[in-house]
Amino acid sequence: MDTALFDNLRLEVRRGCLTVAVLAALRTEQYGYTLRKLLAEHGLVVDEGTLYPLLRRLETQGLLVSEWREEAKRNKRFYRLSSMGLQMLTLLVVEWRSIDESLDGLLSESHHESARPVSPGR
Amino acid sequence: MDTALFDNLRLEVRRGCLTVAVLAALRTEQYGYTLRKLLAEHGLVVDEGTLYPLLRRLETQGLLVSEWREEAKRNKRFYRLSSMGLQMLTLLVVEWRSIDESLDGLLSESHHESARPVSPGR
Repeated sequence: MDTALFDNLRLEVRRGCLTVAVLAALRTEQYGYTLRKLLAEHGLVVDEGTLYPLLRRLETQGLLVSEWREEAKRNKRFYRLSSMGLQMLTLLVVEWRSIDESLDGLLSESHHESARPVSPGR
Repeated sequence: MDTALFDNLRLEVRRGCLTVAVLAALRTEQYGYTLRKLLAEHGLVVDEGTLYPLLRRLETQGLLVSEWREEAKRNKRFYRLSSMGLQMLTLLVVEWRSIDESLDGLLSESHHESARPVSPGR
């Protein structure tokens, strides 16, 4: 088994989903550390080099808002979903569920029959 | 709502999943037309400009094998999963299920409480 290839494909599967996961997590305000912790608690371990650029991108796209605030004597940047981010999350979750159903359907197809014959006129 | 942004993010969510869907579909041999039809029947409408390059990439990566054969008086390129492709599909489906659970978990988190306070020593 080519593990580099697997890592590659796994990353591809995770990439799109990570955006949805981050939007979902930021319905509650978080700063970097608590956000990573929350994602990890749900099985999504994300390194800082992936998460911080994603947060900046989502803020630039208007899906997040952020604010610097002092907490426990440290300045921290707190992120939360904007109202457009919440709309987007809702749409993306619908999309996700639909893809999940498609995949379930495909996986439950019998894979013993061969391709169906197509009439000559096709 | 920024529909261009939504299309963009939706595509990102779909991209990783499409690989898994194509591998799942090709447990049974298909040629381009029947493959697109099968995917569409399961709600995944994929244009040729996306599907054909993906098939070539997956074949180059050793996950698919293909063969030209005449059917109904036309030469068609038939694709099916290689044994490595089947192993990869199994691993990617595990990954997919795990991401799906993570996302479900995050979505069912209450989003009324604010970020938990972190002890000053952190």
